[in-house]
Amino acid sequence: MTEHHFSELALRVTPTDNAAALAARALHDRLTKPQGSLGFLETLGVQLAAISGECPPPVPEPATIAVFAGDHGVVRAGVTPWPSEVTAQMVANFCAGGAAINVLARHVDASVVIVDVGVATPIPGEAPGLLRRNVRPGTANLAEGPAMSTEEALAALDVGADVARDALEHGAKLLVTGDMGIGNTTPSAALIAAFTTSSPRDVTGRGTGIDDEMLTVKTRVIESALARLSPDATPLDVLAEVGGFEIAALAGFIVAGAAAKVPVLIDGVIAVAAALVARAFAPNVTGYLIAGHRSSEPGASVGLAHLGLNPVLDLGLRLGEGSGAALAVPLVQAAAKVLREMATFDSAGVTEKDDA
Amino acid sequence: MTEHHFSELALRVTPTDNAAALAARALHDRLTKPQGSLGFLETLGVQLAAISGECPPPVPEPATIAVFAGDHGVVRAGVTPWPSEVTAQMVANFCAGGAAINVLARHVDASVVIVDVGVATPIPGEAPGLLRRNVRPGTANLAEGPAMSTEEALAALDVGADVARDALEHGAKLLVTGDMGIGNTTPSAALIAAFTTSSPRDVTGRGTGIDDEMLTVKTRVIESALARLSPDATPLDVLAEVGGFEIAALAGFIVAGAAAKVPVLIDGVIAVAAALVARAFAPNVTGYLIAGHRSSEPGASVGLAHLGLNPVLDLGLRLGEGSGAALAVPLVQAAAKVLREMATFDSAGVTEKDDA
Repeated sequence: MTEHHFSELALRVTPTDNAAALAARALHDRLTKPQGSLGFLETLGVQLAAISGECPPPVPEPATIAVFAGDHGVVRAGVTPWPSEVTAQMVANFCAGGAAINVLARHVDASVVIVDVGVATPIPGEAPGLLRRNVRPGTANLAEGPAMSTEEALAALDVGADVARDALEHGAKLLVTGDMGIGNTTPSAALIAAFTTSSPRDVTGRGTGIDDEMLTVKTRVIESALARLSPDATPLDVLAEVGGFEIAALAGFIVAGAAAKVPVLIDGVIAVAAALVARAFAPNVTGYLIAGHRSSEPGASVGLAHLGLNPVLDLGLRLGEGSGAALAVPLVQAAAKVLREMATFDSAGVTEKDDA
Repeated sequence: MTEHHFSELALRVTPTDNAAALAARALHDRLTKPQGSLGFLETLGVQLAAISGECPPPVPEPATIAVFAGDHGVVRAGVTPWPSEVTAQMVANFCAGGAAINVLARHVDASVVIVDVGVATPIPGEAPGLLRRNVRPGTANLAEGPAMSTEEALAALDVGADVARDALEHGAKLLVTGDMGIGNTTPSAALIAAFTTSSPRDVTGRGTGIDDEMLTVKTRVIESALARLSPDATPLDVLAEVGGFEIAALAGFIVAGAAAKVPVLIDGVIAVAAALVARAFAPNVTGYLIAGHRSSEPGASVGLAHLGLNPVLDLGLRLGEGSGAALAVPLVQAAAKVLREMATFDSAGVTEKDDA
């Protein structure tokens, strides 16, 4: 694998194709339905045309869901009731096919790649299929100092870019983000606060379920970590200081998908944080992003608004793993099929409305 | 076919199974994810258990989408810019496989049944597969008098119940509602106003796209039609006075599905009106209903709130045909699979969170 090819890919993300978008918009208006009546599904179809540069766009299948797993030293600051060991246990569960993301991926005909990019404890069992790209066994405690060195952050960005490249080489036409990491809503909220210049209070949530006291601790940890950042910190500095291995890998995965002109369907608050990181490196990535759902974490909505993304689903999910994005896969594929398969007013002999 | 068996079925709709619902709730809390983290997907899974009386519930597949088509005399009052002929033209388009509902049904592996229950003009072409159950070629103009006689309304209710029974006999495990009828947002808004005791102004919308002037006409037509109803009008009287053939058929379809303890996935504002009619005949039907999406028509939201239903999707759709419900099919099926296929904390050897 090319060394540090993430940074090269980041330079290659071009704007999406506006001419194809306009052609898709015009095609939609000739299909046998009132104009605009398929709402957000039309918007998605136009975006898929813009991403692919084709009208109608190809159906984005098959989909590959990459679940990046990492641990977080900040768990020692008391930001979650779940022990770090659960990250490794859930990785084993993913590899055994028993987690929510496995069920949902099978349901939507997507393949799943599980990547250990920074899990702290040994993965129990044989973990069949696990991609072992561990940069370091867990980040340092960001409550006390930088979570990663910039070299480590860059290594994790490269892991994500490599996983995307491999998936694309194996024929993936839709990349889907997933994550696992006990404690990872803390670095995500910190990154969202940093990249949207929001108050940590407005973007810090209860993650997988914490009480008021723990929420106060979590918010203070984020505030103090962000206070260490110098005003001239680069995006890589911010990522290293308050990020995490799986978040960095997701950012690399997103950038590599966008560089290859493939739609990237992002999951919840962790992916939103990664998308903000990705955009800081490659501003054009947002055109390639589809937000699968609106996580119930407050930082997700702040981040989505900042990215200018409307989510496909809003089901009150807060699981991660890529679960919300997986559920959105059939809807994204439907958006392309509508443009490819529907009859036009002319071809079907249907009279248009009287606008006289 | 049994004569007037709709009325017999309406008596057979029992409440859903609360014990199965509680078992599903308890099972969800043992699956390898934070409790409640799958949000509305968990709610749907619990409802599917309650409907089937089994925990975990069977996966509701295959799905059958029934598209009932009818015309409306009220089109002559100037409530839509589309000519009535488009209903028949779109029925031909459905039968040829070129409409949005065909594309979406193929995408979600659902079969489609097209039923002419009251189309006014001849269906162009051969219309392969069309079920011809035309009660009358279009309703009377409800701006001037009753849309249907009560006998006609009952006949249409029976058509819907028959179509549901046939689908179930052919193995359908999920019934999905669809509709086609130029002008049918007018009777739908009237029924929603009547059954929710709302002001016509609050439930009348722009349908497939009308201007302010036409919206004023439409609202006045509904107000004056409702003013004809006597205070002791039965649900059948209301349906006959301001309803439509496809709406009555949908109500019969819903009741028959609920009587058979099968989930019924409803589409937009037309289906919401039909669900309110169905509930007036059989109050327990709501337990069997899943709202596929929130139509952008204002009456849909008023009706859904009245029925106590939260929609799965909110994509700004206003097409009808069953398009929004079809898009929700994979999500409903996913809700059952999560309960059937996910590992538990015990079986996967995953540590639960520390609640000490």
